[in-house]
Amino acid sequence: QASRDSSVNKKIPEALNSRKPKKLSCTSVKASGSWASCPAGKAVTGCSCGYGCGSWDVQNGITCHCQCAGMDWTAARCCQLV
Amino acid sequence: QASRDSSVNKKIPEALNSRKPKKLSCTSVKASGSWASCPAGKAVTGCSCGYGCGSWDVQNGITCHCQCAGMDWTAARCCQLV
Amino acid sequence: QASRDSSVNKKIPEALNSRKPKKLSCTSVKASGSWASCPAGKAVTGCSCGYGCGSWDVQNGITCHCQCAGMDWTAARCCQLV
Repeated sequence: QASRDSSVNKKIPEALNSRKPKKLSCTSVKASGSWASCPAGKAVTGCSCGYGCGSWDVQNGITCHCQCAGMDWTAARCCQLV
Repeated sequence: QASRDSSVNKKIPEALNSRKPKKLSCTSVKASGSWASCPAGKAVTGCSCGYGCGSWDVQNGITCHCQCAGMDWTAARCCQLV
Repeated sequence: QASRDSSVNKKIPEALNSRKPKKLSCTSVKASGSWASCPAGKAVTGCSCGYGCGSWDVQNGITCHCQCAGMDWTAARCCQLV
């Protein structure tokens, strides 16, 4: 039993440490107008807007909405674990 | 020994792959005035401000601070692994 | 065989659950002018700019660029798993 356990105890950490650790990966999605959405599976971490506008909100959990009038473009920063 | 190892070698990856992979989840926290904080356990990934203001900083690691004068609202984008 | 499997079946979840879960950690990097970069290994989740400017983009995957003219400072929000 003891030698069986020691093999298991050795192998599990080895297996865990051999796996490629997850890391955070982000891209931007830009669209004309006041809205820009992240693809499914990615999360919105921030938004950028045209005309120097810094007022935005996130709608439906995945869509950046720039609130200033007459917005020419909106960009969403979209992140996921890879 | 060999057959014991092979069972371990087979079971570990099975166990690892059966676990639900972590993913990034983000929400917004909005407050009136110049500050908005993320709940404990969540990280600030970005901030949004009223009056089109795009100048912000993060205080105490968890609080968005909008720097423009007379700020009516501030929103923090708060993310965590779930 | 059965008792060997049950030891493995018990030990693997124990090993997995004993590992410290990863969490999201973010910091800010501020620089004068129109650009600010995250250190290697960290992802840009958002950017902040001087003069209330909210128009930014991310260049080379790691550098915040504030687009408004005559930018005095730029800050990048940089996140990673720890």
